[in-house]
Amino acid sequence: MNKLYVAGIGAGACEDLTLAVSKRLADSEIIVGYTLYCGLIKPYFPDKTFLSTGMTQEIERCRKALELAAEGKRVTVICSGDAGIYGMASPVLELAPSYGVEVVILPGVTAASSGAALLGSPLTGDFAVISLSDLLTPQEQIVRRIEAAAQGGFCTVIYNPGSRKRADYLRACCGIFLKYRPPETVCGIARNISREEESVRIMTLAELASYPADMLTTVFIGNGDTRLIGGKMVTLRGYRK
Amino acid sequence: MNKLYVAGIGAGACEDLTLAVSKRLADSEIIVGYTLYCGLIKPYFPDKTFLSTGMTQEIERCRKALELAAEGKRVTVICSGDAGIYGMASPVLELAPSYGVEVVILPGVTAASSGAALLGSPLTGDFAVISLSDLLTPQEQIVRRIEAAAQGGFCTVIYNPGSRKRADYLRACCGIFLKYRPPETVCGIARNISREEESVRIMTLAELASYPADMLTTVFIGNGDTRLIGGKMVTLRGYRK
Repeated sequence: MNKLYVAGIGAGACEDLTLAVSKRLADSEIIVGYTLYCGLIKPYFPDKTFLSTGMTQEIERCRKALELAAEGKRVTVICSGDAGIYGMASPVLELAPSYGVEVVILPGVTAASSGAALLGSPLTGDFAVISLSDLLTPQEQIVRRIEAAAQGGFCTVIYNPGSRKRADYLRACCGIFLKYRPPETVCGIARNISREEESVRIMTLAELASYPADMLTTVFIGNGDTRLIGGKMVTLRGYRK
Repeated sequence: MNKLYVAGIGAGACEDLTLAVSKRLADSEIIVGYTLYCGLIKPYFPDKTFLSTGMTQEIERCRKALELAAEGKRVTVICSGDAGIYGMASPVLELAPSYGVEVVILPGVTAASSGAALLGSPLTGDFAVISLSDLLTPQEQIVRRIEAAAQGGFCTVIYNPGSRKRADYLRACCGIFLKYRPPETVCGIARNISREEESVRIMTLAELASYPADMLTTVFIGNGDTRLIGGKMVTLRGYRK
């Protein structure tokens, strides 16, 4: 059976690729992905054919990749970060049976891990990952999950924390956390991870509430075990007496 | 300032390494880690000095690595999966200031991503990660978090689901999920990811409750959007009418 690969490319630098993904991209004829991510990877694989489309055209992109794979082409769909987490693995797997194509998922380093590494170690223990984008999840479900994560004492990673249309979502999210955690709780943001303008900042939960986060930002909200140590955001490991 | 690297090696096969970690290990004189993980990586870096210690000796291991780094040696501490998530980044960062060593964290692919890729795409949307090991987290906090994850509708990844001493923990965990999700909820396990005896199995939440999971198993509990499609565990992306 013809195969279609779906690969997570990590944050965007060549060094973020796993050896498996790097090898698979080198072996591909056609690389399919969102315009921005194709642009990030193109310099490392200049001889490949890139098929890129903009945001909101994910399903057409998956169908095109499946069609080409069904014709016997060596095709890889790329996703930023991991292939599964807010990625294309799910729509590809959902559509694949009608194309008679076998899907192979190659995982990658998601922003929860790459952003955490820049900040220190915010995700040492149990954690939750929540996207604030209501393009795909109803608003009330997002709020219910934030409430659960805050109440459950999870360190929490926020993907897609803001955009022009959703300038107040992070403030509202922090408002919920402030019901359960003190305003001085250690938080952090990582922006443009692995790219030229990469930056991190550690701040309190109160400060985070008015931070102007955009789509290139990943947000980390600490819990009662999170400390500022040597300028890093560190969630302590294990029991403390 | 002398540097100490803490690197996530992924599930254990050479292909799971990121290019950054691979390069860093090749450039190290001494690789420090838990015996099992050193054994996994040794065949790919046979000319390195390995310093390995058993479980529960994590802090001595971190101190030894910091001492060697402070002496100017090129040292890398390895962790399975990611460097931060249930990894050594936190204790190393906590101890580092007293050694005058700068710590650099290199992220890796955690079992939530690598196990998910084998099963399909269980973590398409918001998710929670919880360890059932009570070696480092009090039992009542684990239960509180399971309750929050179940109530919040999170797809949930369970690390360290069982051991001889904790044979009933996964059953108790599933019991909590069964209060909020139907017994036919799609779940899955990945065992020995990237190793010779790698295996996956998809089952219902009711079946998972009596599955004899061990420390080499990662468990995935679906939510209301999780389906069995073409033999894969897939959490659907986006709104469904």
